[in-house]
Amino acid sequence: MQVQAPDWHHGRVIASTPEPPYTAVIFTSLRTDGDHGYAITSQRMLDLAAQQPGYLGVESARDGLGITVSYWSDDAAAAAWKQVADHLIAQEFGRTAWYVDYQVRVARVTRSYGPVGPR
Amino acid sequence: MQVQAPDWHHGRVIASTPEPPYTAVIFTSLRTDGDHGYAITSQRMLDLAAQQPGYLGVESARDGLGITVSYWSDDAAAAAWKQVADHLIAQEFGRTAWYVDYQVRVARVTRSYGPVGPR
Repeated sequence: MQVQAPDWHHGRVIASTPEPPYTAVIFTSLRTDGDHGYAITSQRMLDLAAQQPGYLGVESARDGLGITVSYWSDDAAAAAWKQVADHLIAQEFGRTAWYVDYQVRVARVTRSYGPVGPR
Repeated sequence: MQVQAPDWHHGRVIASTPEPPYTAVIFTSLRTDGDHGYAITSQRMLDLAAQQPGYLGVESARDGLGITVSYWSDDAAAAAWKQVADHLIAQEFGRTAWYVDYQVRVARVTRSYGPVGPR
């Protein structure tokens, strides 16, 4: 679990993913006004995600538009996380309270490059 | 070009991509302090990207970590854009002036869902 530790907490650094292939879930969203339990639940979701099988890391940024990319070993791990997340969201205020609009895109990463090589 | 118009200008809305499959280029970065020509060049790059063959849209957010996801009809269109972008960056201050760290991940989107269906 050591590679997840730096980005797991906030998603504010570049995720230390392994060499491709692996799966990326790109979640893009526009928030509603107000918190509606969002801050606590979103932190809880990041905590839960990091405990799932096949979790590789997460990256997140928001300035108006929010983009969170979570990385998984394969599509099955990403799909299993979706079941957990949907259940958690259903227990809370839910997507319509938090998001004016959102989109989830599931993608297979085939190439990765940067100053330290693939990750 | 009408679907690109809303998100092309700032990348601040959810991109109106077609039904999958298509290609996503996930660019994650940590900026250096100071501008170093970044603001003008990054706007110029968004303008140029939108004129490339196979361009489908872009989404961008930054709060410390920056995430820009550009969408392309296929890997070849994304690769062609990389050549244009690399050339432009080489003419300017370049990645080392702008970024402490960055990563580019090329991924094939296979599924997409949200309140308005796939996009």
